Amino acid sequence: MKLKKSPFAPLKFPKLPAVPGVMVSACTAGIKNNSQLDLMLMVFRPETIAAGVMTKSSITGAPVDWNRRVLGTHNSRALIVNSGNANVFTGSKGTETVTKTAEKVADVIGCNPNSVFVCSTGTIGEHLDSKKIVDNIDNLYQTLDTNNWLKAATAILTTDTYPKGSSRITTIDGNEIKIVGIAKGSGMIAPNMATMLAYIVTDAKIPQKMAQILVEEGVSKTFNCITVDSDTSTSDSLFLFSTGATDHPTIHDIDDPAIAGFRSALNEVLLDLAHQVIKDGEGAQKFIEVRVEEALNNGAARNIALTVCNSPLVKTAVAGEDPNWGRIVMAIGKSGEESIQNQISVYIGGTLIAHNGEVAKHYREGPVKKHMAGRNIKINIKVGVGNGSATVWGCDLTHA
Amino acid sequence: MKLKKSPFAPLKFPKLPAVPGVMVSACTAGIKNNSQLDLMLMVFRPETIAAGVMTKSSITGAPVDWNRRVLGTHNSRALIVNSGNANVFTGSKGTETVTKTAEKVADVIGCNPNSVFVCSTGTIGEHLDSKKIVDNIDNLYQTLDTNNWLKAATAILTTDTYPKGSSRITTIDGNEIKIVGIAKGSGMIAPNMATMLAYIVTDAKIPQKMAQILVEEGVSKTFNCITVDSDTSTSDSLFLFSTGATDHPTIHDIDDPAIAGFRSALNEVLLDLAHQVIKDGEGAQKFIEVRVEEALNNGAARNIALTVCNSPLVKTAVAGEDPNWGRIVMAIGKSGEESIQNQISVYIGGTLIAHNGEVAKHYREGPVKKHMAGRNIKINIKVGVGNGSATVWGCDLTHA
Repeated sequence: MKLKKSPFAPLKFPKLPAVPGVMVSACTAGIKNNSQLDLMLMVFRPETIAAGVMTKSSITGAPVDWNRRVLGTHNSRALIVNSGNANVFTGSKGTETVTKTAEKVADVIGCNPNSVFVCSTGTIGEHLDSKKIVDNIDNLYQTLDTNNWLKAATAILTTDTYPKGSSRITTIDGNEIKIVGIAKGSGMIAPNMATMLAYIVTDAKIPQKMAQILVEEGVSKTFNCITVDSDTSTSDSLFLFSTGATDHPTIHDIDDPAIAGFRSALNEVLLDLAHQVIKDGEGAQKFIEVRVEEALNNGAARNIALTVCNSPLVKTAVAGEDPNWGRIVMAIGKSGEESIQNQISVYIGGTLIAHNGEVAKHYREGPVKKHMAGRNIKINIKVGVGNGSATVWGCDLTHA
Repeated sequence: MKLKKSPFAPLKFPKLPAVPGVMVSACTAGIKNNSQLDLMLMVFRPETIAAGVMTKSSITGAPVDWNRRVLGTHNSRALIVNSGNANVFTGSKGTETVTKTAEKVADVIGCNPNSVFVCSTGTIGEHLDSKKIVDNIDNLYQTLDTNNWLKAATAILTTDTYPKGSSRITTIDGNEIKIVGIAKGSGMIAPNMATMLAYIVTDAKIPQKMAQILVEEGVSKTFNCITVDSDTSTSDSLFLFSTGATDHPTIHDIDDPAIAGFRSALNEVLLDLAHQVIKDGEGAQKFIEVRVEEALNNGAARNIALTVCNSPLVKTAVAGEDPNWGRIVMAIGKSGEESIQNQISVYIGGTLIAHNGEVAKHYREGPVKKHMAGRNIKINIKVGVGNGSATVWGCDLTHA
């Protein structure tokens, strides 16, 4: 089944720069049931470190188990990713496939298998034939190139309707630094997916432990603030590979002003990719931003915002372009977080609707209906109990 | 908009017996935007006690606040319910409407206003004109009858496609006891609803504190084990009114064998009504039962079962009659509850599909596809960590 392209799909894939220390290739390995690209290899220079976060699901695939074990233990030399099969709930055969894959990649590059990251996305519960992957690794190695981003971003897709890439150029101590990211994911609603993957590469020289902090901090405000359908994949993974190919002075402190620019550029790439994932949510017609303020703390604000953004009632109201603010109020109530009913304010598209425990005086539905007819829906909420705030992003689901 | 009748709608409303000590009436008060019944009054004999549970949302309507305050403080003389307006997020005017309503009912019956329960269901955030209710109370009082169940069950509906009633006849110490219940609710997906209401009446003589225990125990295995869309209403309320009109010996202990039959008959009425609510879920085409065993405890089992039953991925698989067990596995993983991946078993319609961490040997999709083509879908899960079990019920949502 060919899915209809998202109305948010960009006209073309962005031009992404080469990143010193990173080579990429992709091929058709026959894992997907068509002739599309489905296997991708990235190779990194020996000094590269990796940081990353993985799904919080208690049910994970063999690749996630492998990556959890090797993360932070060795320098990182390679990443291999297939689409079309998630290698989840595949028993000991699944583990065997991952091991054979990492060993073959390590053999070709000349490194420890623990320096190889392995990811899979696609159907759950079907055996992933290691031969299809292993037999293609020599070819992938021989076709490595610094500019294969579009092929790489395409090879990791499943039900996505467009490839996703983003980049920023920044500086550390006057040295130009490149950050390039690719991602896949469009919710877990479509056929058999197991789902979100994102890879960021940079030529900055960041110690592994500091990179890990930067990734967790960045993800908490970007990828962990988006929601398509509230389902949690068995395979979600995001990695940052930092090659250190640019010879700037080593950074020893997370708050060193020298990396302030890098930190914010990294967060911009993460946010851009996260938004691209939401905008390719299954059948998404509306991009929804929910901002919550005056919560007990930032975590409570995020929880309220996610509850609003995940509510089927709110999603259907947005899909139907119906300014039904009662549903927003309902979702705030069900979040389990503290709020003061008489202090809650609800805005849609900047128009104050609910206030002081009832509909705002002089509220007219017209401007809100007009806002809701657009593609980008903004909901602002104040809950009157503290200084916590958060922004999350989601989409409607009704046209899935 | 007229909603299409649920395929699960019964051919006709069940014949419900009169309950000694209970009189009922209903009328058209013009609160709904059509000429349908929208106001219902029940009057109880003076010795009646009430037990009940209400929404856990932190945002509640004025009626819920009123009922929370009076529950268990006085004998109960009356219940008045309107549909078409939930009287939620209506500020001090909302409280005023509830107070005026209770005072007028109390005045007509000759009782304390705190003996009157007031419920509202319908749109959130619109002022509910007390005049529409108060002006109809004399008329409602004059038309009270012991057999007005169908009118009462109809007057409390909003987007439901059929009225919901259930009854059982049992005995306590050889005395015949009647239990009659009516309910409304079909999820929170449709226009402006705020939502589930259920009222059970009996002529048994049960002390209030014991009735409260029986209700909480019964609800935990019935109404708290159903899910249409995961949204939580601002108005959900369930009350049991026990008139004591049947003169059996007083029950002093919850485990007195004399009420074992009553207890199970009450739970049957609760379960029957809960199932009727699910089967009228917005656009429901499939009734889903999820049974979880071998969880750490019963609460963990219920949480896993609800996570599976609420998962948009699982719902769409059921709607599409696709035996996509990977989605069930995914939902178990996201529940946050303990499970041992290699010990998980998943059955659909009695067929073992996943087992020992991978697809079951000799699994054939045919019988499962056939089961999924039916209306009643059974999913059984074992998670291999303990003795906890729970059953929950839900429906697909795709046709809403």
